[in-house]
Amino acid sequence: MTAVFDRIAIVGVGLIGASIARAAAETGAAKSVALYDVDAAVRQRARELALGEVFDDAAAAVAQADLVVLAVPVGAMAAAMQAAAPGLKQGAVVTDVGSVKGAVAEAMRAHAPAHVFLVPGHPVAGTEHSGPDAGFATLFKGRWHILTPLADARPDYAAAVDRLDAFWHALGAEVERMDAARHDVVLAVTSHLPHLIAFNIVAMAEDLESVTESEVVKYSASGFRDFTRIAASDPTMWRDVFLNNREAVLEVLGRFSEDLAALQRAIRWGEGDTLYDLFDRARRMRREVIEAGQDTAAPNWGREN
Amino acid sequence: MTAVFDRIAIVGVGLIGASIARAAAETGAAKSVALYDVDAAVRQRARELALGEVFDDAAAAVAQADLVVLAVPVGAMAAAMQAAAPGLKQGAVVTDVGSVKGAVAEAMRAHAPAHVFLVPGHPVAGTEHSGPDAGFATLFKGRWHILTPLADARPDYAAAVDRLDAFWHALGAEVERMDAARHDVVLAVTSHLPHLIAFNIVAMAEDLESVTESEVVKYSASGFRDFTRIAASDPTMWRDVFLNNREAVLEVLGRFSEDLAALQRAIRWGEGDTLYDLFDRARRMRREVIEAGQDTAAPNWGREN
Repeated sequence: MTAVFDRIAIVGVGLIGASIARAAAETGAAKSVALYDVDAAVRQRARELALGEVFDDAAAAVAQADLVVLAVPVGAMAAAMQAAAPGLKQGAVVTDVGSVKGAVAEAMRAHAPAHVFLVPGHPVAGTEHSGPDAGFATLFKGRWHILTPLADARPDYAAAVDRLDAFWHALGAEVERMDAARHDVVLAVTSHLPHLIAFNIVAMAEDLESVTESEVVKYSASGFRDFTRIAASDPTMWRDVFLNNREAVLEVLGRFSEDLAALQRAIRWGEGDTLYDLFDRARRMRREVIEAGQDTAAPNWGREN
Repeated sequence: MTAVFDRIAIVGVGLIGASIARAAAETGAAKSVALYDVDAAVRQRARELALGEVFDDAAAAVAQADLVVLAVPVGAMAAAMQAAAPGLKQGAVVTDVGSVKGAVAEAMRAHAPAHVFLVPGHPVAGTEHSGPDAGFATLFKGRWHILTPLADARPDYAAAVDRLDAFWHALGAEVERMDAARHDVVLAVTSHLPHLIAFNIVAMAEDLESVTESEVVKYSASGFRDFTRIAASDPTMWRDVFLNNREAVLEVLGRFSEDLAALQRAIRWGEGDTLYDLFDRARRMRREVIEAGQDTAAPNWGREN
């Protein structure tokens, strides 16, 4: 493959940053990869894993880069942008991988020099594991990558967006462009609320006096364990998501609670038809997810029970 | 293997009934298998799948059986017991596979003749698929099977329980004995509430005006799809579970809603530490589930994203 960028720099070497480094090297989407992480132990690990050229300073890491990817938790974007800013070269494309786009675009804009092209983005991909060791080259393959370009009137901005689009395509992703506000509402439904619910039910089960934790763990295969996987995701990342997408999350959460209260009432009053109709509707959505190729139809995702 | 029972009869040929038939034949836990289903189309399919000797009458199906398994939705247990009752032979063990035990034990007791041994049970196993075609012989392997024996003072009752215990062991399950009321509380936490939450979030997403259904499906890999699998389970079965385990479900649901309201408040007021602490606790529970062998540690359960 012809490289899309000569040199990329990744600030933040967690699951996503390490996966970009591996994918860029494996696909040839970039000729060279520079890395920086605020944590010295992570930098050390990145060196051991040979993820690229590791720098002890953010500005030095981004100095030669045509593409800079900020791969830190949403709440750390402003600081990462500030640290990288002095090193950014003329015309560099700067993007991020945050799960919230409105707040992140603002944070980046506040600290970026005028001579770069800011194109916020979000790879809709991940696993419940975190850290540099969790990264792998095929993480983005067949997954959506959402770009939320800014209203930037400079003539070269559109070309910068196209080039970033091509980069993610080279990593195997399908690219979609969207307004930042719309992104934040859609993801509040498909990702942020599901994670919040999962965190809540798992923490609740740990607190119960009527049922012991070992009983919950023992019989978790009956439904509960599927929530524990989602709830195993990085707590810092998720704290930042909820603090930075507050409006959209609170809106869908209100709707969820309202519907749950109606369901609670149907159970209390023994309204079997109401329950059946709702469960039957939910089942149909599963078929659509399978048909859209967003999950496997194998029972239990192919695991043995 | 020496057969644990000469002949077993299964009333209700869905995922569980078909799996018992296959497992009993494959392991040799029973010498012969008789089957009945209230639905003629299901009986026909059971014949095509060669799951055992299929009868058009419940009483005829159970006539020679040493073990009778009622494998119907919880709300249909009373009717299944009534239909089978005239055929039950002296000293037969009669069990069920319902996800609720208190209400089912009562329903069975109300319609069973005095000359059989009632031992309610619950295999903590299943997939999101239903019907006779979904059954497979290894469904119970390595999973828990909970028996909730009655307070039956007859001298032979304990031996009947032991024999049923041995049968499920022969099918590969680990057997646990428990009080019916305790079972219903534990399963309300580990299974019933997770399913209710999953049904609710999936149905809610379908109803939203702000986000289209196709957007939800498209970006479902970011968390939502894991809920759709659970929400794909049989709606009749689940309606019956909620109607028959009302007290325990309403109790844990109240607790869940209370905790969710606290989380909502923490988001509204930007209490990052509260969020972080809760997410971190939830993550620890995941490790316990993995360590207890109740799930795989592979990212996304080993599926490609």
